[in-house]
Amino acid sequence: MRTEIATLGEFGLIRHLTENLELKHPSTLYGVGDDAAVLSYPAGKDILITTDLLLEGVHFDLTYVPLKHLGYKAAVVNFSDIYAMNGQPRQITVSLGLSKRFCIEDMDELYAGIRLACETYSVDIIGGDTSSSLTGLTISITCIGEVEHGRAVYRNGARETDLICVSGDLGAAYMGLQLLEREKAVLKGSSQDVQPDFAGKEYLLERQLKPEARRDIIARLAEAGIHPTAMMDISDGLSSELIHICTQSHAGCRVYEEHIPIDYQTAVMAEEFNMNLTTCALNGGEDYELLFTVPIADHEKISEMEGVKLIGHITRPELGCALITRDGQEFELKAQGWNPLKASDSPSPTPQNS
Amino acid sequence: MRTEIATLGEFGLIRHLTENLELKHPSTLYGVGDDAAVLSYPAGKDILITTDLLLEGVHFDLTYVPLKHLGYKAAVVNFSDIYAMNGQPRQITVSLGLSKRFCIEDMDELYAGIRLACETYSVDIIGGDTSSSLTGLTISITCIGEVEHGRAVYRNGARETDLICVSGDLGAAYMGLQLLEREKAVLKGSSQDVQPDFAGKEYLLERQLKPEARRDIIARLAEAGIHPTAMMDISDGLSSELIHICTQSHAGCRVYEEHIPIDYQTAVMAEEFNMNLTTCALNGGEDYELLFTVPIADHEKISEMEGVKLIGHITRPELGCALITRDGQEFELKAQGWNPLKASDSPSPTPQNS
Repeated sequence: MRTEIATLGEFGLIRHLTENLELKHPSTLYGVGDDAAVLSYPAGKDILITTDLLLEGVHFDLTYVPLKHLGYKAAVVNFSDIYAMNGQPRQITVSLGLSKRFCIEDMDELYAGIRLACETYSVDIIGGDTSSSLTGLTISITCIGEVEHGRAVYRNGARETDLICVSGDLGAAYMGLQLLEREKAVLKGSSQDVQPDFAGKEYLLERQLKPEARRDIIARLAEAGIHPTAMMDISDGLSSELIHICTQSHAGCRVYEEHIPIDYQTAVMAEEFNMNLTTCALNGGEDYELLFTVPIADHEKISEMEGVKLIGHITRPELGCALITRDGQEFELKAQGWNPLKASDSPSPTPQNS
Repeated sequence: MRTEIATLGEFGLIRHLTENLELKHPSTLYGVGDDAAVLSYPAGKDILITTDLLLEGVHFDLTYVPLKHLGYKAAVVNFSDIYAMNGQPRQITVSLGLSKRFCIEDMDELYAGIRLACETYSVDIIGGDTSSSLTGLTISITCIGEVEHGRAVYRNGARETDLICVSGDLGAAYMGLQLLEREKAVLKGSSQDVQPDFAGKEYLLERQLKPEARRDIIARLAEAGIHPTAMMDISDGLSSELIHICTQSHAGCRVYEEHIPIDYQTAVMAEEFNMNLTTCALNGGEDYELLFTVPIADHEKISEMEGVKLIGHITRPELGCALITRDGQEFELKAQGWNPLKASDSPSPTPQNS
C-alpha cells in the first residue's frame, strides 16, 4: 500500500506521526504542537544536548537498510552520545526531509523504529520539523538528557596511569556493513530475486542495523561507584576516539592488541574478506561502545565488571598514542575512522588492509 | 578564492568554523567539542526547545540568497519560535550537510551570518554536526531557550473576548520573495550581467532576506505587565496561524481587514504584481511577527504599545474564524499558508489572487 504524503500535507503528516505520543518524563511539560517544547528539570541537574544529521547516500543506504531499523538506529546513536557524557537521555526532536519517493507508509515504518527506540530507552519525542526535500531522505535528531550537576564526564579528564576501558566488542558493525555491501553488489549483477544467506552472521548484521546504546554500562559504573575520568562513545573507530581523548586530555596512551575485544563472528568475517582484524577493530566505525578511562585505584572493581575490557593505560603526552602488537612492536595510532567529508564518494568507512 | 572542504576534513572543518566561539551565557557549561554540550539552568526556569530543518531548493534558493543572509535567517527563525513562547533564546546547535559544490569560504560566509545572529540576540553556539551530502545544502538548527517556570505562552490559551494583536506589518517578506523570483526569471533570459534595480523596495528584500525576531515586543509586554493568553510567530501566514490558535484554544475569531498592518512598499508591490493585498498579508509567509491574544482588560495598555496592532477578537468556537472586510462582509479564514509538503514543485508560497 502506498499513500502519497501530499494527501495529508505537512501538518497532517506531523499529526499522523505524532498522535498518541505518550510523554513519560515528569521533565517534559509540553511536547509536540507549539512553537517550542517546554521542559522543566529539577534543580541539581545539568542538561545535555547532542545532535546528529543523517543523509541518505552518505550515512545510510536504503537498498539494504529497512526504514524501521534506520529509525531505531538514528535515535539510538543520539542516546549513545548522552550516555557517553554519563547522562540519561530524556527527550528527542525529530526532523525529516522527504522526497516524493517516500509515502506515508514509509514514514510510519521509520517512525515505528524511532518510537521503539524511545520506548526501549524511555525517551519522550517532543517535537521536530517535517518538510519535503528535492532528493532523498534527511533525518536530523537532537537529544536532550540529564546528569547530576557536575557529574558529566568529558573527553578531557584522562590522567597519566589511568586505565583505558572499552565495553562490548569492536569491529562487528563495520563487518556487518561490508557484508551488506557485498550482497548489494552480488544482487545488482543478478536478475533473479536471490535471498542472501546471512546464517551465522546475524550478530554482525545486528550490530550494523540495530545497534544498542550502553545504558547498562553507565548503570554498572554508578553501582560500582566508579566515576570515569574521561569517556566517549565509539562511533568513528577506536583509534580515532583514543586520539580525541588523548589530545583533549593532553596525554598519550598505550593500547594492547591482545586485549582489544573482538567477537568470533567478526574474526571469521575478516578472514573471509582477507582483512586485518585489528585494523577493522581499530578503525571500523559505528560500534557505539563506550571508551572510558578510570583511575588506577579502580583496577580491581573495573576488572570484575561484566562487559568491560581493560585495553591499556594513559601515559605522558610525549609518548604519543600507540598500539602494542602481540609480538611487542609499537605502532602509532592513526585516525583512519569514518570521515564522510574526506571520503565523500564512498559511503562506507575505509580502513586500510594493512 | 576557493578552498575545498576535503583539505580540512570533517573534524578540521568543525574546528575551523567553531574556533574562537565565545560562550556568553552562564547557563552554558560546555559547548562544542564533546559527545554533548552541557547546560546548567538555574532553578525556577523552564527550558524551551525548537528545531528547524532547511533544505536547498525547498526553503531557500542560493541563486538570490547570499549565504551570510541565509545563515542569519536560519538562526533568527529559531529565536523567533522561542520568543513566541515568551522565552529568551540562549543556545543553538548547527548541523550542516554540504555537497562538493561548497567550499570552505562558502561555509565561512554561512557561519558569519549565524554568528552575527547569535551576537545580536546573545545566543551561544554549543554544538552541531557537519557532513557531506550528495546534493545541495542542508541546515538543521535546534535552539534552546529559557522562560520563568510556568510563564511559557502556548497557542491554546485564547479565551472569548480576548483581543487579537499582531506586531509589525504583514506580507512584506512574501512580496520580497516575489520580487526576487521575478528578477531571477528576468536574469535567466538575459545573457548580460544585468544588475536588478531594487531601489525603493529595500524593505521588502530585507524582510525576506534578513528577518528579525521580535525580542523587543516580548520585552515591552513584560514591561507593561501584560501576559498574553496565547502566542505564536507568523511563519506560515496570518490566516494559518489564527486557525492554529483558535483550533488549539477551542475558539473562533473575528479579524478586521482594515486593521491588518501593511507597509506602504508591500502595497505598492502588490499593485505592481496585480495581487490582492489582503490575501498577501493573510497568507504570505515568513513575516516572523508575533501573533498573540490578551485579555480585554489589557485593552488600554495594548492600544498604547508601540509596534503592536489590534486586529480583532476571540469569539465562541461556533462562530468559526472569519475576516470582516472593509465593506462589512464576512469571509471564512482558510489556511493557504506555505506548505512545502503539499506544493512540493513550487518552492514559494502560493496565495491565490482573489
